[in-house]
Amino acid sequence: MEPIVQNTLPKISVSEFNQLLADQHPFASLLEIEVVSIGHGSAVLLLPNRSAHQRLGGIIAGPMLMGLADLALYAAIVGATGNPEAVTASLSINFLRKAPPGGVLAHATILKTGRLASGDVLLVPAVGGNPVAQVISTWSLPREK
Amino acid sequence: MEPIVQNTLPKISVSEFNQLLADQHPFASLLEIEVVSIGHGSAVLLLPNRSAHQRLGGIIAGPMLMGLADLALYAAIVGATGNPEAVTASLSINFLRKAPPGGVLAHATILKTGRLASGDVLLVPAVGGNPVAQVISTWSLPREK
Amino acid sequence: MEPIVQNTLPKISVSEFNQLLADQHPFASLLEIEVVSIGHGSAVLLLPNRSAHQRLGGIIAGPMLMGLADLALYAAIVGATGNPEAVTASLSINFLRKAPPGGVLAHATILKTGRLASGDVLLVPAVGGNPVAQVISTWSLPREK
Amino acid sequence: MEPIVQNTLPKISVSEFNQLLADQHPFASLLEIEVVSIGHGSAVLLLPNRSAHQRLGGIIAGPMLMGLADLALYAAIVGATGNPEAVTASLSINFLRKAPPGGVLAHATILKTGRLASGDVLLVPAVGGNPVAQVISTWSLPREK
Repeated sequence: MEPIVQNTLPKISVSEFNQLLADQHPFASLLEIEVVSIGHGSAVLLLPNRSAHQRLGGIIAGPMLMGLADLALYAAIVGATGNPEAVTASLSINFLRKAPPGGVLAHATILKTGRLASGDVLLVPAVGGNPVAQVISTWSLPREK
Repeated sequence: MEPIVQNTLPKISVSEFNQLLADQHPFASLLEIEVVSIGHGSAVLLLPNRSAHQRLGGIIAGPMLMGLADLALYAAIVGATGNPEAVTASLSINFLRKAPPGGVLAHATILKTGRLASGDVLLVPAVGGNPVAQVISTWSLPREK
Repeated sequence: MEPIVQNTLPKISVSEFNQLLADQHPFASLLEIEVVSIGHGSAVLLLPNRSAHQRLGGIIAGPMLMGLADLALYAAIVGATGNPEAVTASLSINFLRKAPPGGVLAHATILKTGRLASGDVLLVPAVGGNPVAQVISTWSLPREK
Repeated sequence: MEPIVQNTLPKISVSEFNQLLADQHPFASLLEIEVVSIGHGSAVLLLPNRSAHQRLGGIIAGPMLMGLADLALYAAIVGATGNPEAVTASLSINFLRKAPPGGVLAHATILKTGRLASGDVLLVPAVGGNPVAQVISTWSLPREK
């Protein structure tokens, strides 16, 4: 699915977004997520392979994948709007398969911005192969202070 | 909402569940969650107040609340079934309000067990007051090994 | 779960709500839903037993139950706010069991109103017994014209 | 997003699927849906423009769009598996925009089959333009009788 606006520069760069996370979002460091790319309404983030992220069976725990998806949506929305005040209003995730070792990539795409934004995320193994989870989510965009 | 079976002993105790998390679910220690109680198809878990769990605005980050809800459902399902192999199939969360300082309690209730289980979670401030999020979730229960 | 405000009169009566459906919501007559009661942030609606609502296996079709839940939330929100312009922003449903003959009751409860409202619905057989589906949903409340 | 298997014939044709709906799914005739195409894990269905499907404001009612999405997923799953016994386990929908007159197309794609299937749907105006809703859903696949 294509982002809402193509051929438009993102309103935040990867390095600016990393700085935003470091300054304002302490929880993000628990996930050790790497931001691969940010577009205008799209983003790709990587959850690296960490034994600390596992659950029974040696698979990546669901909450780590939810955190990855949530941050990917945040990056895509800030990329489209420049508004760091965006907050998740709702998020739904379906888990499809166990993630093999080697990290998980999240591909987020925003389909609507405005007072309420909406988008989806596909989570795929970093080594390739079938998707491990899919997500849709709505976000509330308060006025910037 | 009442759990699926009342007046029935849970199939795991709080101390046994804590041991299960310590032995098999490394990710749980990232959240520092405390298990308050487990019933037969119900559970109450506490996400303690930690600055490491915050996001922009000094509020508890969404992924921390999703992790809290997911673990509360897991405790309630293992309390009803005794099966630690249960895995999340889907989870939907609505965020209602910012959580004030002082920790967040998750009240999980299972409405159906079987090959596919389903339940809900209400997240409320530990100091009382209006709920901060509500969750419904389905779980897949593989045969125990 | 208790509605957001108790001991407060609803902002619409059952007969006024039925008139609103008849005048402005043509689709509602397809479902033949009966409004049992409306409170300030709560509502109970009945989907009567109709062979036209069935799917393979003689069970009530999922979309009929989604429509019932959506209208129950609408009644509860208009009961709390008086604003008929409310529209669904997101809805998540888990199906728990097949519904036996005899109609399905939806119990809707609103946990938050404001620019964005949120609530849940439990769907139970009219003849009693275990719930057949559970729902959470967010709603957008535009300014009244 | 591509269906799970490409270049494979669907296990049901459009005319066979229409016959299945006519014989076994009475509720489908309430929606008057037209099946445009079915692939192996994908389907396109049309909700035609009907005043009977409208809600306040002259827009297509949410439950009609949920019914359209649910049937599109059913067509895509039967197209991939040939199993008409598939039932919805969970469905989440985000509403993005009001649908303009002229009908709504649902594009369903299945990302996983097995005991539990999962897929997504994008709902777009038949006349083109931005999507009006997005859906993810899980399905339970009982053994065929």
